Amino acid sequence: MSVFSKIIRGEIPCHKVAENGDYVAFLDVSPIAAGHTLVVPKCEVDYIFDLAPDTLSGMTLFAQRVAKAMRKAIPCRRIGVAVIGLEVPHAHIHLIPLANEGDLDFKKERLTFSAQEFAQMAAAIRQFVE
Amino acid sequence: MSVFSKIIRGEIPCHKVAENGDYVAFLDVSPIAAGHTLVVPKCEVDYIFDLAPDTLSGMTLFAQRVAKAMRKAIPCRRIGVAVIGLEVPHAHIHLIPLANEGDLDFKKERLTFSAQEFAQMAAAIRQFVE
Repeated sequence: MSVFSKIIRGEIPCHKVAENGDYVAFLDVSPIAAGHTLVVPKCEVDYIFDLAPDTLSGMTLFAQRVAKAMRKAIPCRRIGVAVIGLEVPHAHIHLIPLANEGDLDFKKERLTFSAQEFAQMAAAIRQFVE
Repeated sequence: MSVFSKIIRGEIPCHKVAENGDYVAFLDVSPIAAGHTLVVPKCEVDYIFDLAPDTLSGMTLFAQRVAKAMRKAIPCRRIGVAVIGLEVPHAHIHLIPLANEGDLDFKKERLTFSAQEFAQMAAAIRQFVE
């Protein structure tokens, strides 16, 4: 079972941002920007383009709702998107607040936040999810 | 009018990979990997998450078809996804063939190909678009 499935089952804690029957969004524990969020389908499929078209389009619309909330909650110009998918074998979309073009950079040093700071960021985003 | 709208209108040439009534996919002229493709909606909207939900989900499914073709045509492990959107004011998805985790890196030196090489790459992908 993937680490994301364990998060979805509640076996590993997360700072949840949004959830519905099919998808969940939570803060990346190793963020490249404050508010960096992962969107994950509850079905465990490794490669994002192997998802059924309906699942993939639903995931995109769920991510759109989360991204709109993030942009209201986190100081940034836009929310960037990245899918790499060569580490955890469970499809996931990175939503990353961007201030500059160069900010979508996975080679940057990761940020660290306290549990309280993560909880505050998640709550700040959650209040804007429509 | 954005440079992508000029491409869509045929005023600027491109190496087209796929097209339908709403979206077009063509090779990035400044690729970070061989086969690096851009997916663009024909309607000129700057920020991807401002797209109408139907347009965004249709764009994702169009991108999925292109990504499946790319993976058949280009030697790679997976097709990665990136949306930055702070340069050209017309929403676009980067589809990037990945061999390794670090390959989704916009700070890498861009590759150069001859017009003939670009044309061959586009044709190779096009033949697999379903």
